[in-house]
Amino acid sequence: MRLTVKEIADVVEGVVIGKEDTLITGVSGIKEAKEGEITFIANNKYRPLLKSTKASAVIVPRDINNTVDASLIQVENPSLAFAKIMTLVGPEPITFNPGIDKTAVIGKNVIIGKNISIQPYAVIEEGVEIGDGAVIGSCVYIGHYTKIGSDCLIYPHVIIRERVKIGDRVIIHPGTVIGGDGFGFATVKGVHHKIPQIGTVEIGDDVEIGSNVTIDRARFDTTYIGSGVKIDNLVQIAHNVYIGENTIVVAQVGISGSTTIGKNVIIAGQAGIIGHITVGDNSIIGGKAGVTKNVPPNVHVTGFPAREKWEDMRLQAYSRRYPELIEKVKRLEEKIKKLEKKVREMYGEEPEDN
Amino acid sequence: MRLTVKEIADVVEGVVIGKEDTLITGVSGIKEAKEGEITFIANNKYRPLLKSTKASAVIVPRDINNTVDASLIQVENPSLAFAKIMTLVGPEPITFNPGIDKTAVIGKNVIIGKNISIQPYAVIEEGVEIGDGAVIGSCVYIGHYTKIGSDCLIYPHVIIRERVKIGDRVIIHPGTVIGGDGFGFATVKGVHHKIPQIGTVEIGDDVEIGSNVTIDRARFDTTYIGSGVKIDNLVQIAHNVYIGENTIVVAQVGISGSTTIGKNVIIAGQAGIIGHITVGDNSIIGGKAGVTKNVPPNVHVTGFPAREKWEDMRLQAYSRRYPELIEKVKRLEEKIKKLEKKVREMYGEEPEDN
Amino acid sequence: MRLTVKEIADVVEGVVIGKEDTLITGVSGIKEAKEGEITFIANNKYRPLLKSTKASAVIVPRDINNTVDASLIQVENPSLAFAKIMTLVGPEPITFNPGIDKTAVIGKNVIIGKNISIQPYAVIEEGVEIGDGAVIGSCVYIGHYTKIGSDCLIYPHVIIRERVKIGDRVIIHPGTVIGGDGFGFATVKGVHHKIPQIGTVEIGDDVEIGSNVTIDRARFDTTYIGSGVKIDNLVQIAHNVYIGENTIVVAQVGISGSTTIGKNVIIAGQAGIIGHITVGDNSIIGGKAGVTKNVPPNVHVTGFPAREKWEDMRLQAYSRRYPELIEKVKRLEEKIKKLEKKVREMYGEEPEDN
Repeated sequence: MRLTVKEIADVVEGVVIGKEDTLITGVSGIKEAKEGEITFIANNKYRPLLKSTKASAVIVPRDINNTVDASLIQVENPSLAFAKIMTLVGPEPITFNPGIDKTAVIGKNVIIGKNISIQPYAVIEEGVEIGDGAVIGSCVYIGHYTKIGSDCLIYPHVIIRERVKIGDRVIIHPGTVIGGDGFGFATVKGVHHKIPQIGTVEIGDDVEIGSNVTIDRARFDTTYIGSGVKIDNLVQIAHNVYIGENTIVVAQVGISGSTTIGKNVIIAGQAGIIGHITVGDNSIIGGKAGVTKNVPPNVHVTGFPAREKWEDMRLQAYSRRYPELIEKVKRLEEKIKKLEKKVREMYGEEPEDN
Repeated sequence: MRLTVKEIADVVEGVVIGKEDTLITGVSGIKEAKEGEITFIANNKYRPLLKSTKASAVIVPRDINNTVDASLIQVENPSLAFAKIMTLVGPEPITFNPGIDKTAVIGKNVIIGKNISIQPYAVIEEGVEIGDGAVIGSCVYIGHYTKIGSDCLIYPHVIIRERVKIGDRVIIHPGTVIGGDGFGFATVKGVHHKIPQIGTVEIGDDVEIGSNVTIDRARFDTTYIGSGVKIDNLVQIAHNVYIGENTIVVAQVGISGSTTIGKNVIIAGQAGIIGHITVGDNSIIGGKAGVTKNVPPNVHVTGFPAREKWEDMRLQAYSRRYPELIEKVKRLEEKIKKLEKKVREMYGEEPEDN
Repeated sequence: MRLTVKEIADVVEGVVIGKEDTLITGVSGIKEAKEGEITFIANNKYRPLLKSTKASAVIVPRDINNTVDASLIQVENPSLAFAKIMTLVGPEPITFNPGIDKTAVIGKNVIIGKNISIQPYAVIEEGVEIGDGAVIGSCVYIGHYTKIGSDCLIYPHVIIRERVKIGDRVIIHPGTVIGGDGFGFATVKGVHHKIPQIGTVEIGDDVEIGSNVTIDRARFDTTYIGSGVKIDNLVQIAHNVYIGENTIVVAQVGISGSTTIGKNVIIAGQAGIIGHITVGDNSIIGGKAGVTKNVPPNVHVTGFPAREKWEDMRLQAYSRRYPELIEKVKRLEEKIKKLEKKVREMYGEEPEDN
């Protein structure tokens, strides 16, 4: 990479504050950046580092205007702008051989689009359809009659079972299992009888799913992941869950069976949501929260059992005052004893028990 | 599917309330069902939907007797009855080619039963035994001297390491790892030396294990999963754990080393259990509970640290009354001040500090 | 195994208390041990079992000197000593065919050291380097330009993506994914745009990583795992995390993006740590703790939100006294009422409201 600050500003449609002709040769984090590198500020937490960074240029939100040594490039969305730069300057992207590797096992009646790459030891069962531009990594398993849209990137060792539908431009990271049986048993006299899981999984467009995720197939009907949903690593999504568009599910979250999650929801890491409830659109579920009942739209819940954040914070704050309260009650007790004594004296009474 | 309500009732040994000759052509959930479909009610939460469902027939517990438009089929266990129907009407089950795929790698002295299917790229190491009727999915790895019983269904990409024993009719979902080394180190001057994990894993009959589960081999002796145990996705079972018969372990649970779980226990999602303790038969561990000491038989514990549910609920309820208590104590303080003032006045005293 | 107590003591450099010529034929846990077997005590919890064990010999810390029937072998570190014995007496270690299996797919310009074993269906992409003595299990995927040091043991089905660096003597268990994309999006008008993850992962020497772990590649720069770090199963390590030397990360822990963990830290099972914070050297994070802010060196934090353990314990203890406090305040209220009544009587006043 050898671009001037001005050239970079043009790429990201930004306004330069400071020197325009400084030569930029690399990208880095704001703490690690060296002279000649460009960095950015998105998280407010890092704003104070603007003064100490050694970077030669910093992509910043439009409201940052400090006079520092580094050249600033003001943009609407620094993360997005920096993402563009990274694509420019990042290492050469990995490419895969076009076509179907000779070791891939392709079943009967499989329909495969144009410009695809199917890597070694992939196993594609009977009746599968794969759209144009797909990359199917090595050792990927795609079950019978599953349909995968166009321009999908399925990393090595993804397992997709039968009759699943996946939209366009979906990215699935290694080790993820889609369409495993839901966890359902009918217990008769202590013995658990398997309930057949005859439903499927349907995944919209532009979904990204992390590594070692599990998304179970429905008992009947469909486990549904809406378009634009982003799912991090090691997430569990049970049978018959419905997730609305553009919802974000962070690592190690678990969503129990038949629960409905709205659109644009954020579910932070390690949260758990019980089954058969509804989480409204635009809500936020805090990290490690345990959600035990419906969450209305547009609220932020935290804690376990999850409550609205302000309430959870208040209870937290109160619980920290607990030792102080106990002390206070002890002092009140003593004062009352003294008062009782004096009042008894006035009345000329004997001390009561208790 | 084209069966009358009467014909379905005969299959599930149920009693029809309403029309017997209605033709049923599909199954569905109670909310999603359309005319001509059959659904069921198992969870009491869904009972009110009986009035609004568009289903033409509903399988219900024997105590439901409403007069609704749909035909009712009363049975002992609606989930189990519906499971039977689903098997009847579900899509054609997926079948796998019989025999050993030519790409499967089979080690020396492997013993394989009759009527099996070993799929492409499976790797079966030396000395393995596999019983009759087993299906071994593609890319499955089975380590040296491991024994697998009859009629097991091992999904693609399951990894079972050496010297593990697995019973009959066991189902293991994709990505699960059985017999990985237990996590054990001896720390000498800050350096962690690996303790060899020379034990194994033994799994009983009729066990089902979800996707991306990890069950570690014992340090010595055996990590043991009793017959009839059902384990959901992404569960961690550490070395030397013992799980009694018919226990249910829901998704993302973690059980630490050398802990013993009784029979018929239910461990709900995301619960964690520390090492070297015992959980008694028939107990229930609530979702997200953190169990830090022995749990007796037949109790229900919740929360973190886990307590008996009634106690946890009481503490929860009390904690919600906290703000009110603080207000009350404040009012008591004021009253005491007033009382002190009056009593001092009677005595003709000067105000004290505090 | 047929060794006398004396011979074993010589191997572990221990002192025999009791009979030296007893013949030992096996190893076992202290509860399960039978006559002729050797066991050990490391965890203080098991000390009382010394009296009841049927083992013929017990490896113990130097401060144990009971007169029991079993011969004792006193050593500095019983776990470590027992580990040595286990290696002596454990089952024959599994060995893998030397060389590169003919089904392994090896890309261009791959450099492979001496005395290696590459198992069936491994896929090694272009430009990979693998050091001497490595074992690469079946179906392992190693991405472009990744470097693996010498004497590594990479179990079947491990997936390591491109440009990752792994040190010497690293052990990685099955199903683990290293170098998956970090979870990063820039949201513009509700749509989440992927931020390229152009960094990598670097892993030091003598690291052990459990099964089905996920370690994401950095946005830029490096996700770093220091030498001697030990990671248990199903752990999530997000992009740009830094973990110092000899830190221990127990099962199902999640560490969010850009967080720095010091050296010799212990993070117990199911703990979660938010992003962009620092955990100091030698600290301990309790099981299921939720760490929401920086942790200084040398402290032990527990609970959610995580606090220093003594404080968390105190708040726990206080919260158990809550019902009692409520009762006490109720009694104080009544006493105050009585006092008020009496004082009013003295003054000859009418009762006030409230």
